[in-house]
Amino acid sequence: MDRVNRQFRLRARPQGLPKDEDWEYREEPVSPAGPGQVLIKTAYISLDPAMRGWMKEGRSYIPPVQLGEVMRAGAVGEVVESQHPDFSVGDSVSGALGVQTWAISDGKGLHKVDPRLAPLPRYLGTLGMPGMTAYFGLLETGQPKPGETVVVSGAAGAVGSVVGQIAKIQGCRVIGIAGGPEKCRYLTEELGFDGAVDYKSDNLHEALKRLCPERIDVYFDNVGGEILDAALARLNMHARIVICGAISQYNATGPIQGPKNYLSLLVNRARMEGIVVFDNAKRYGEAAREMAGWIAAGQLKSKEHIVEGFETFPQTLLLLFSGAKQGKLVLKV
Amino acid sequence: MDRVNRQFRLRARPQGLPKDEDWEYREEPVSPAGPGQVLIKTAYISLDPAMRGWMKEGRSYIPPVQLGEVMRAGAVGEVVESQHPDFSVGDSVSGALGVQTWAISDGKGLHKVDPRLAPLPRYLGTLGMPGMTAYFGLLETGQPKPGETVVVSGAAGAVGSVVGQIAKIQGCRVIGIAGGPEKCRYLTEELGFDGAVDYKSDNLHEALKRLCPERIDVYFDNVGGEILDAALARLNMHARIVICGAISQYNATGPIQGPKNYLSLLVNRARMEGIVVFDNAKRYGEAAREMAGWIAAGQLKSKEHIVEGFETFPQTLLLLFSGAKQGKLVLKV
Repeated sequence: MDRVNRQFRLRARPQGLPKDEDWEYREEPVSPAGPGQVLIKTAYISLDPAMRGWMKEGRSYIPPVQLGEVMRAGAVGEVVESQHPDFSVGDSVSGALGVQTWAISDGKGLHKVDPRLAPLPRYLGTLGMPGMTAYFGLLETGQPKPGETVVVSGAAGAVGSVVGQIAKIQGCRVIGIAGGPEKCRYLTEELGFDGAVDYKSDNLHEALKRLCPERIDVYFDNVGGEILDAALARLNMHARIVICGAISQYNATGPIQGPKNYLSLLVNRARMEGIVVFDNAKRYGEAAREMAGWIAAGQLKSKEHIVEGFETFPQTLLLLFSGAKQGKLVLKV
Repeated sequence: MDRVNRQFRLRARPQGLPKDEDWEYREEPVSPAGPGQVLIKTAYISLDPAMRGWMKEGRSYIPPVQLGEVMRAGAVGEVVESQHPDFSVGDSVSGALGVQTWAISDGKGLHKVDPRLAPLPRYLGTLGMPGMTAYFGLLETGQPKPGETVVVSGAAGAVGSVVGQIAKIQGCRVIGIAGGPEKCRYLTEELGFDGAVDYKSDNLHEALKRLCPERIDVYFDNVGGEILDAALARLNMHARIVICGAISQYNATGPIQGPKNYLSLLVNRARMEGIVVFDNAKRYGEAAREMAGWIAAGQLKSKEHIVEGFETFPQTLLLLFSGAKQGKLVLKV
């Protein structure tokens, strides 16, 4: 068995898109599990837009990754050694294991997952952080009611695709915003969305006007920028905007583009609220059970975009920002 | 008695600050009260930042004033003729009477006020729309809790000064943002604010850091622009931003400046919500009773900035935007 721990560490804080030189590739000997620890061999690493934020200095919802540290990432893998009472050799586990091929954990934030119920990469997507983000962000903060119109951006992504499907299950009219005809077809033909807007070719304002004749009650935003402004311009009275992310702005080297239509909140007595999934950690189990039921019933579909080869991490990460992927982006070790 | 109805009508939609040429001054004969109507002689006209929004075309929380119409405005006056069962000659009343010296009303939106309890202009300020806006915006939407830090912009204005004083009554630490040392002194020395920021000379970010050591729990925004961004940068976890207005942006001829720090909502799981006072119309009585109690107890002070001369309306209105007034701006007919 390969007992070399291959890692990507953050060498420099990226300006704009992360470049190869921002990463340090390192090989280290694998340490054994000490008392209270488990040793995990990583199988799949989750690549998420939030990682771009963790590379930045400054106050955020979580401390930034320090220069020289192994890059933070969610991952699933198999327990190879255990001196922890809750985990046994052979268990499949999920946690913040980092961008490395082996990880030591003290069990904090580590969860067992069942590879017989779902393929392992799904525990990084619909049954992982993106799914939890969608579930709590939409249901708790967005509070959609049957018959309302829900619009989601980044709709073909790991979070957006789950948001839209849960909104359908709640009896809403659901419109997705995504880039390119293939993603839009996926939304309407495979996931059952009521409509899709291709932000790369459609006129956003006209498309939202046509597809949301009764305006927007809930807008779930993953992207920020022009798309957030277009949604603001189409709000219904007492609308709720869930701010989950702003991928269009993460690599900006100048100032963030603020939503110039924010006074629509006043006109429509509407609300814009930010969410961070970790706040719901105590309720992940409840959400996972309900979502597993929807998956079993065929109401909640998933797609993973799996790229093989640990060494491709710096380039594969960029697929998040180029739009050249569909569904949850996962790196197979 | 002067039976000529002098009026200012909207001639053109202003570009930037409203100019003299945007108004048409007209004199008309006064019509008698018909069945179900009252005839009112206007005494004081309310000049409010919201009027700038009513001059603009486009969807808002209220239809725009049409070209050629008498400009919309709140006012107080005296009933001179009545064919309405609820109003008698001699009653003092408040309502949306418009920028004119005489008004006909069918009683809708017309309220009796008592000139023995408070001077008439106060019914356009603390006991009128600005006071109601402050009361419901702060208490219902801002939801301040004792010990929390509340920051209000436009703090020496009709709405802001009431927001800050109510927040003090709720047991909060209150910081006001206003323009110039005189207004700032008024806030801390006369109204009991815990601190004041002079946005014209202080470094906003440093001042908010110094005056809000435990960050901002409630930010009540009347101004938008750079000040909104500075407050966003200093939010506490689960903060609430009340969007009441954006006077810094009302006369913009280019696009509105969107809050580039809006992702602070995400970092802090915070909320930004718009309010329109009319939504609380059914509860005005309840609010007025509570506020009258605070006034009687000396906990809620008011200042009106009264300018005499109906004909000065076009120029007096501009005092709202130049910052050269303090307290509620009222035009005495």
